[in-house]
Order: sequence, then structure tokens, then C-alpha cells
Amino acid sequence: MTDDLGRKTASGSGRSPSQRSNVASFIVMDVMRAAAELERQGRSIIHMEVGQPGTPAPETARAAVRAALDTETLGYTAALGNDTLRARIAASYRERYGVKVDESRIVVCSGSSAAFLLAFLAVFDAGTRVALPSPGYPCYRHILSALGCRTPLIETGPETRWMPTPDDLAALHKRESLGGLLIASPANPTGTMIEPDRLAALIGFADANGLWFISDEIYHGLTYEAPATTALSVSDEVIVINSFSKYHAMTGWRVGWLVVPPALVRTVERLQQNFFISAPAASQVAALGAFDGVGELERNRETYARNRALLLDALPEAGLSALAPADGAFYLYADVSAFTDDALAFASAMLEDIGVAVTPGLDFDESRGNRYLRFSYAGTESNMAEAARRLKAWPRLKR
Amino acid sequence: MTDDLGRKTASGSGRSPSQRSNVASFIVMDVMRAAAELERQGRSIIHMEVGQPGTPAPETARAAVRAALDTETLGYTAALGNDTLRARIAASYRERYGVKVDESRIVVCSGSSAAFLLAFLAVFDAGTRVALPSPGYPCYRHILSALGCRTPLIETGPETRWMPTPDDLAALHKRESLGGLLIASPANPTGTMIEPDRLAALIGFADANGLWFISDEIYHGLTYEAPATTALSVSDEVIVINSFSKYHAMTGWRVGWLVVPPALVRTVERLQQNFFISAPAASQVAALGAFDGVGELERNRETYARNRALLLDALPEAGLSALAPADGAFYLYADVSAFTDDALAFASAMLEDIGVAVTPGLDFDESRGNRYLRFSYAGTESNMAEAARRLKAWPRLKR
Repeated sequence: MTDDLGRKTASGSGRSPSQRSNVASFIVMDVMRAAAELERQGRSIIHMEVGQPGTPAPETARAAVRAALDTETLGYTAALGNDTLRARIAASYRERYGVKVDESRIVVCSGSSAAFLLAFLAVFDAGTRVALPSPGYPCYRHILSALGCRTPLIETGPETRWMPTPDDLAALHKRESLGGLLIASPANPTGTMIEPDRLAALIGFADANGLWFISDEIYHGLTYEAPATTALSVSDEVIVINSFSKYHAMTGWRVGWLVVPPALVRTVERLQQNFFISAPAASQVAALGAFDGVGELERNRETYARNRALLLDALPEAGLSALAPADGAFYLYADVSAFTDDALAFASAMLEDIGVAVTPGLDFDESRGNRYLRFSYAGTESNMAEAARRLKAWPRLKR
Repeated sequence: MTDDLGRKTASGSGRSPSQRSNVASFIVMDVMRAAAELERQGRSIIHMEVGQPGTPAPETARAAVRAALDTETLGYTAALGNDTLRARIAASYRERYGVKVDESRIVVCSGSSAAFLLAFLAVFDAGTRVALPSPGYPCYRHILSALGCRTPLIETGPETRWMPTPDDLAALHKRESLGGLLIASPANPTGTMIEPDRLAALIGFADANGLWFISDEIYHGLTYEAPATTALSVSDEVIVINSFSKYHAMTGWRVGWLVVPPALVRTVERLQQNFFISAPAASQVAALGAFDGVGELERNRETYARNRALLLDALPEAGLSALAPADGAFYLYADVSAFTDDALAFASAMLEDIGVAVTPGLDFDESRGNRYLRFSYAGTESNMAEAARRLKAWPRLKR
């Protein structure tokens, strides 16, 4: 068949998408689309579905980009990243955690998304089983699955403070012969942090049993009770993933980094050359500038802290009292099983009825997610207060 | 073992990189490093190894970013990209080729690198055989190999004008039962373009035999004899990959796009959500601005055209007369078998002796690359003239 331009159409050749591309959609992005559509219709929407700050990159980052636009070509950088930025990131480990990390181990990449792909390809072959806590960031399992890995889950809950225990890991490894384990702390969607002793015990198990330990530290810096512990304070053989997206408020710049063991640097460099060439040059300039923006970034964090305090009071008053420990990040993970067994429909009703957009737990936990909602408090204080008012008045939260 | 901070080191657990991460280094980047090192030592180096313009993004692109830095948050965009940019890209197909492409089929992504990953994951499962012309861009085969695909090569040369013939494809498909074919025109490293009839015949074979046809059109716009033909003028069922890196001089911004058949849009959107979230927001702003920079971009192209003319005279005078047809891009691919059977050593000697950095053919052709060098003429006219002088005086090019 040909169309009116003489081109072939609908070949009917039986071509179809690959099997491995059959990964789930990231539901939060569908929620964002539905919320944006209502907004276009003139509705007032409070965005508690988005996993990103409402603020731009700090002014120091933007000023660095303005200067570079006038003076630099901004072509490809070295595959491992701009050396000045790599050194600055390495220095930050000493400043923030008192840990010495050689700059040669820092790989600048296109956000933590690229870091996952690079790390997973670098150490896991197809068929490898990589343990993931559940609930957790859905892209871990979708990326691993598209790369042919298996992702046995360790279910966590209030009884284990939403983090795997060393016993959980040992039992799963015995059953599944794992190749690795990934832990995020503070975690998404719960905001819960792992205790330093438990982190050390999990890394010790991984070291003793030949498992790769991957530590997603993207929410470090956004903590409210105690600072987070980097896995690098326990071992140099872990793979650490971090990003400028959250604390530095630079989601859209797509710039993050890996810290890898010395023996993996060349492997990851080769993968970066082939899969990405380099991270975006202007974003690397922005990232370097962001290190000088701590004053502004700490004011952002203080806003999140006030939002968190407000919601930790208001959500229980609205009927949502079963919350995971909100140690860090900017999320509250609420058990809504008293009101629904269909969190997706419940979230849709919340958006439609009171204009509060939240993410159903299904993104993070396929088996139990229909009983949970994730509230992001990265918005403004006035929006959080308005959300609290609307939630308290929503009849669906009355028992 | 523990180090002086009490951390465990060198676990000796037997962990090692994955098998699939064992892809070759991208030699051009190693050449860039060697050239940069000589430059640091004070040597005058002419960079003919780099596959990128020496000019920055057009002023219209940079102005758009400056404005956005003051007025926009620059957070994540929609996974498929900024809708205004998608519409502008779609419109460019009508303007440049007279082809109608619906904007819903445009996927904005982090450079052509991301486009390869998205396209390959979307349509090829592990084990699929994807035909690639040789010589060709090395990352095609490295990415496909890391994703578990096989990459049977179709050797091209002067006798087939450096492009596969329909007979080549039919014979290989009969032997290997292919899942797809990837063609770049203008090609890297040769700069050679495929004739419209041959392109249509290859796509016709793919359509008739259920192969995915992927067209890498990254060098479109950089042509010197005749304009390039988009695969979309032949069929709507092809996957087209393009980027703002080359014609728009925006390599470091890492922004490109895919055009996919309607039935693949949702598949690619889900992969983008999970693997990238979105392309960099500031880079999408720059890309939209770049559409208004055609005057500046055409002046860049005229510089390349003058460089090309200069070198097409000078290289034969220097002894390098066996060149692939230089239809487009900014490359000359020279047969140096009269002088060496070790192009890597020959390129190292050229860099050391006369400060001209070029890329040995090994990156592009593992079996015959030791007899070829790639010269990039994306630099300034004065540098190209100086390179010509140095090459004419280099004793190693005398027979």
C-alpha cells in the first residue's frame, strides 16, 4: 500500500516491538499528564505527584552556564566528565562525610538514569539476579528487566522499618544465588533511611559473598533528623550512584555521577564512550557552579522541612495516619488501605475531586501498591497548606 | 583488609565486570586524549580526529537558553520531549524534504546515542542479528553487542561506492535471518551518501522481509553535491535517528530525536521514561532556538565546503589520492595502504611528527581499518591549510 505521497504504509510484515521493551509505564508520568490536562482546563492543581523540586537550579549554577554560553564551545567533554567537576565531586566526600575518594573513581553521567544503565551493564550479565527492596523506584526493575536481568524483591514494611535486613538478604541469596543488591537511602517512595549498622552489615554480606553492592544516594543532603551515611564510608568496593537532580534542584539538567571501584573505571569509561559519548557539557558547567549555591539549596531544604512538619501534622488529621518514617527525601508514603484497595482509582478521584495530584503506590510496589499513595512535599509552603486543607475536607478520607 | 579510615578494601571476593561490558574502546577518544596531552606540552596540534564542529551552538540557540535561565525552572520535560520542539522538528521534514511527518511520531532524546539505545531496545531482542555496513560508526556494533544482539557486517568499498547493495542484503539475510539493517548516509567515516534508488530498494527489501530498517541521518544538512534523502520519503515504517550535534553544531548539548512508526511511539515512550526520564531541558530549549540560526549554520557549512575543496586538492598532492567519495558530513576516508599496514602506529607517528591528529580506520572497520585514516575537516580554514602544508612535507607520505 502507498499513501498520497507514494510512500509505503502499514507494511503488514509482522514486525513488532521487542519482547524486552515490554516494561511498565512509569505511572507517575501518566499522573503528571492527567494533572497537566486538568490544569489546561483551568483547574487549580496542587502537584504532589512530581519527584522534583519546584525551584530552578541555584543561581550560582545558572550564572556559570550564562558565562560559559559566552566563552565556551560546549562540545563533547571527556567520557568520564570534566576533570574539574570530577575533582570537586571527589572533594565533596571529604567535606560531607569525612571520606577520602580519589577523583579518578568519579564518572560524571547524564543523571542517575544513565548511572543505572552504566552500572548495571558494567557488572551484571543477562540472567543475573539483582535483589531490590520493595517498595522501590520502579525504573530499577524496569531497566534491569530490559537488560535481561532478574529482580527478586525483598519486601519491606513497618516491621523492618522499610529496609531489608541482613537475614532477608542471606535468605534470598541462598534461594536465588544473587549477583548484586541495590539499596536507596533515603528511599523513594518512603523517604526512609537505613541505619548505619544495617548498611554496614548488608555491605559486609555482599563483600563476603561476591555480590555487587549498589548504593543509590540521590536523596543525600535532603535529610531532616540525621545525616545520611554513604556506602563509601563502609567499603571502596561498592558502586555509588548520585545526582544533582534532587538536593541541587537540577532534575532537567540530567547530570549525576557514579563512584566506582578503581578496577571498574576503565569498564565504565568504555561503556560511557559507546552509549553516551559524554554527559551534557552545559549541565556539567551548571553542576560545578551548583557547589557554590549551598546557601540557596539549604533554604530549599528548610522549605521542605517546614512542608514535612506541616504534613506530618495535617495528614493524620485528614485521616492518613499510617506513614512510613519520613527521614529524608521529600516524600510521605501513606497506607490508604482503610479507604481503598485501588490506589490508582483513589488517586484519580483525589485529582478529580480536590485537585491534589499524588502517585499511587503501584509504581513502587506491584503487589501491595494498591494500598499506598506517595505524597511529594517538594512544592511551596502555601501549596502544601492548601493541599492539607483540601485533604481534610475530602469526604473519601472520612471513615 | 581495611585502610586507614577503617574501610574494607580489595575484597578479593571474585567480583568482576560483566562479560557484556567488554566492548572496545572508542579509539577516536583515545586519540583526542593523546593530542590534548601533546597540546598541554606546548605543541601545535591540528585536530582532524574529532567528529564535531569547532563552533558553538548558533547564537539563536544560546540566546534561547539565556532567556530560559531567567524565566524557566528547567525541570524534567515530558518523556517524548517538549511539544513545541516536537512540532518544530516535524515541520522541518516538510520544509527540508517535502515529507509529511506527524509530530506525535517525534521522540526528543539525549543525542543520537540515546536514540540508538531506545531504537535497539524497542525492536531487537537479545540474539537478534542486525546487519551493519562496514566501515561504520563503531558504537552501533558496541551498543548492539552489549545488548546481546549480533552484528553481521556487510563489507563495502570503492566497488560498491561504500554502501551495501540490495544483493548484499538479500544474501546476508538468507544466511543469517536478519532482524534489521542500519544505514547511515552521509556515512561516518566515509562521508559517502547512498543513492535514492538504492535506499528505496533496501527499504523495500526490509519491508518485504519483516526487517526493521533504521536510518541514521545525523549528517543530513552537511552535503556538498546533492541533498540527502530521508528514509521517511520512502516509508513510514522505518526508524529515523537524527541529532542537533552536527549540522546544528550542538554535540555537547546531547539532544537529538527519533522518528518512529506510529505503532512504536508508546513503546519508545515507556523506554524513555524508564531509561532517561527525559532529554535535558536546557538542551531542548537550545534545539528549538537553533531552528532560527540557519544563517549562521549555513556559514559553518560553507566553511566545511571550502575545507573539503582545499583538502580534496591537497591530500592527493601529499600522496593521499585514494579517497572515498566525500559527498557529505565532514570526513575524508583515505586508503593509506601504500604507506603502512598499521594505521594506528601511522596515526601516532603523524601526531608525533607533524602534530596532525587523525583517527585510524580501526574504529570503523576491524578487519581492514589498519589500511585507512579518517580526516575530519570540521575545523577552521587556516587550520586545514596548515594541516595540508604539514602533510605535504611529511616524509612518511613519500613513496
